[in-house]
Amino acid sequence: MYETLQYANHNRSASLVELFDFLRIPSISTQPERDRDTAEAARWLSGAMSSAGIENVRLIETNRHPLVYGDWLHAGPTAPTVLIYGHYDVQPADPLDLWTTPPFEPVVREDYIYARGAADDKGQLYIHIKAVEAYLKSVGRLPVNVKFIIEGEEEIGGESLHTFISHNHDMLAADSALISDSAMLAPGKPALVYGLRGNCHVLLDITGPGRDLHSGTYGGGINNPLNVLGHLIARLKDERGHILIPGFHDRVRPLSLDERELLAAFPLDENAWLREAGAPVLWGEPEYTLVERISARPTLDITGMYGGYIGEGTKTVLPARAHAKISMRLVPDQEPEEIVTLFEQFVRSVLPPSVQTTIRVAGASRPALIKRDTLPMRAAAQAYEETFGHPAVFMREGGSIPVVNQFDGELNLPTVLMGFGLPGDHIHSPNERFYLPNFYSGIDTVIRYLDLLARPS
Amino acid sequence: MYETLQYANHNRSASLVELFDFLRIPSISTQPERDRDTAEAARWLSGAMSSAGIENVRLIETNRHPLVYGDWLHAGPTAPTVLIYGHYDVQPADPLDLWTTPPFEPVVREDYIYARGAADDKGQLYIHIKAVEAYLKSVGRLPVNVKFIIEGEEEIGGESLHTFISHNHDMLAADSALISDSAMLAPGKPALVYGLRGNCHVLLDITGPGRDLHSGTYGGGINNPLNVLGHLIARLKDERGHILIPGFHDRVRPLSLDERELLAAFPLDENAWLREAGAPVLWGEPEYTLVERISARPTLDITGMYGGYIGEGTKTVLPARAHAKISMRLVPDQEPEEIVTLFEQFVRSVLPPSVQTTIRVAGASRPALIKRDTLPMRAAAQAYEETFGHPAVFMREGGSIPVVNQFDGELNLPTVLMGFGLPGDHIHSPNERFYLPNFYSGIDTVIRYLDLLARPS
Repeated sequence: MYETLQYANHNRSASLVELFDFLRIPSISTQPERDRDTAEAARWLSGAMSSAGIENVRLIETNRHPLVYGDWLHAGPTAPTVLIYGHYDVQPADPLDLWTTPPFEPVVREDYIYARGAADDKGQLYIHIKAVEAYLKSVGRLPVNVKFIIEGEEEIGGESLHTFISHNHDMLAADSALISDSAMLAPGKPALVYGLRGNCHVLLDITGPGRDLHSGTYGGGINNPLNVLGHLIARLKDERGHILIPGFHDRVRPLSLDERELLAAFPLDENAWLREAGAPVLWGEPEYTLVERISARPTLDITGMYGGYIGEGTKTVLPARAHAKISMRLVPDQEPEEIVTLFEQFVRSVLPPSVQTTIRVAGASRPALIKRDTLPMRAAAQAYEETFGHPAVFMREGGSIPVVNQFDGELNLPTVLMGFGLPGDHIHSPNERFYLPNFYSGIDTVIRYLDLLARPS
Repeated sequence: MYETLQYANHNRSASLVELFDFLRIPSISTQPERDRDTAEAARWLSGAMSSAGIENVRLIETNRHPLVYGDWLHAGPTAPTVLIYGHYDVQPADPLDLWTTPPFEPVVREDYIYARGAADDKGQLYIHIKAVEAYLKSVGRLPVNVKFIIEGEEEIGGESLHTFISHNHDMLAADSALISDSAMLAPGKPALVYGLRGNCHVLLDITGPGRDLHSGTYGGGINNPLNVLGHLIARLKDERGHILIPGFHDRVRPLSLDERELLAAFPLDENAWLREAGAPVLWGEPEYTLVERISARPTLDITGMYGGYIGEGTKTVLPARAHAKISMRLVPDQEPEEIVTLFEQFVRSVLPPSVQTTIRVAGASRPALIKRDTLPMRAAAQAYEETFGHPAVFMREGGSIPVVNQFDGELNLPTVLMGFGLPGDHIHSPNERFYLPNFYSGIDTVIRYLDLLARPS
């Protein structure tokens, strides 16, 4: 393993230059006008994988964005097989004016790589490719078999990969799964994620009059879809954070005393966390701690909303339409399809006859809660500690990685979420960044992890 | 007067060509990027007034958009003086994609002139100029003295004209005022407006976290400004249309039995009105009739709202900011400054400490209720009936013309609101239009009106 770590160490600059090329491709999966760029990112990635020595690399076409597959299966019949996952798609970059440097022109400033996708997930995904390459280029072989399955729809619900996995259990068969798409606690303090929230993202359109009306001539006689939307939002969640949709919490698995103790021991500095978020005060369901609220409780957030005149100044209109994008983060054992049904039933039951509505689902993924006491988890903890000199903590993460539920439930794979991001990485925000030392340490950690997997203690 | 009507009749085509030139100038007063166009509209208008024979034409600079003044004062010491008002500014044209033909490329289709500002108010304003020109070019004189005061801020609250009037009572001294900026009942059915609502337009910004946050990582721990805005909107007005701001109704003058009877007799076809608005059902305070609700009751409408990600698809953010534009239409004797204070006090009292807010006033105008039994009103009714062969009805209009309160209260001028628009003119909406026969009949009506004013019966 020494030569492999050496190889990685000697090739750091080259690895960074390649990552920058990857980061320059604006693969925003939600925007149809970026479909070509998203496809280009998949092609670029398959080229980089082949160059790394990964075999059988190919693009798999889907209804939306292609999957990228590749493998190396010569570790011998008794060696375990690791399924490595990542995603090459990124979030939209707006608001663009809040970026210090353009989102798709990566730069390094004070030890951070700044670019959309730097941490989520191109930088973390590329760690795996560089770790595998280091083995193949230094000693000509890997200690384990590996399969890569990389998607381009993680940010929009992961539907194509979900369908693909359902029909390709054999092709993806493995002994465990490895994902780097989460964050450590702080520089030098690794964390293993064992819980993820699911997500239902719905698009709501409310229509009132046939066109934007003069607010003076018609105001008082025609209901205003924007006012209606306000009332609806107020009915979905109360001002203390309790979601009010009937049946919404029915399947929420109560937190066990054990887990509440584990979460209570989680070393989150609430003041530092609040400062980093930049909000005036902490907020949320008063019956739960902050750590519970941001990782183990469901949420309902308006992620975008618009209607009427949104230009400079004013326009005295009673608008024809109001629009909201609403994200509901789910926890075990909530089912996205059922939540969508409950949401739609409730919305239709409370909206007045003076408006009409359409509801579309823009993404639906299941929550996941994975076992902490597995062989891969122990190997991951050891690899982390050997690299960073600090033991890893277990944590639940409030975000979603749609595929984890399926790896765990359907493919029955012990899954390791070995993140190298940091809490201040601004993922999904302007000025997303990735801590450059973690890019290099990440490669070292994965090299150690694959070695440890091959020789279970 | 016969020669004057003849002159107007012979010059119809030329008048229409000139009006088209006026309509081509995108004088959108609320948009700073249109300031040059707005100034150009004032210059164009002053040229047209001079060409019409109006004297002492000049632009009066203000803090925002210039006023245009002109007069003709040779009717003799015993002749009355009429102060004619209009506005050359227009509403924004968006959403542009809903226009059949571009908003600033006027066309005539099936007897309607289509263009932003065609009815509100360039077309109606131009009627006065052409009526005065017809007198001066046919018989060389007017039966009355006239002063024109034209503004470029009617659509944004009329602040500059308000200030100018306060300091220039002598310059604007007259015996009555004439305004054409309202609508008739239907083709051939004239209406004299005696009531107008005021308007407070406020811009509300709500700020939560320091930047757009990842909705998974932070959701549940940080309050979301868009959800907060929803709750606030629900608290401002209930779902049946009752405004809930404490003290808001304190100064609302109760409707007298007489006036309720007058309004009840107003010939509004509710089904046709609803059909024209294109909404599923009528709506509003159940204690009041539709006519009362849209003309004699205050309203609160969100005219624009936005925040978070509003592009195609979704972005999983907990946004930093939410924005709303809120218009409150006022009725006598509500005072805009007081309403703004009540609004702000209430908003600050209900918003939670997890967000911060700024409130700006984008326009504030007083409501007006003017006497129906005045000499100019009787002359207007007669001129209308002579032109259209149909008696005029009295009506209250739900829109606002800021200056009317000041003409009536401060300059003490009996004011005539002699409108030539129609209910289906789509003012403030896409496909604004002006009924071409009313442009020509309007000129005839004003010619008759000025003649009647000079010889009171």
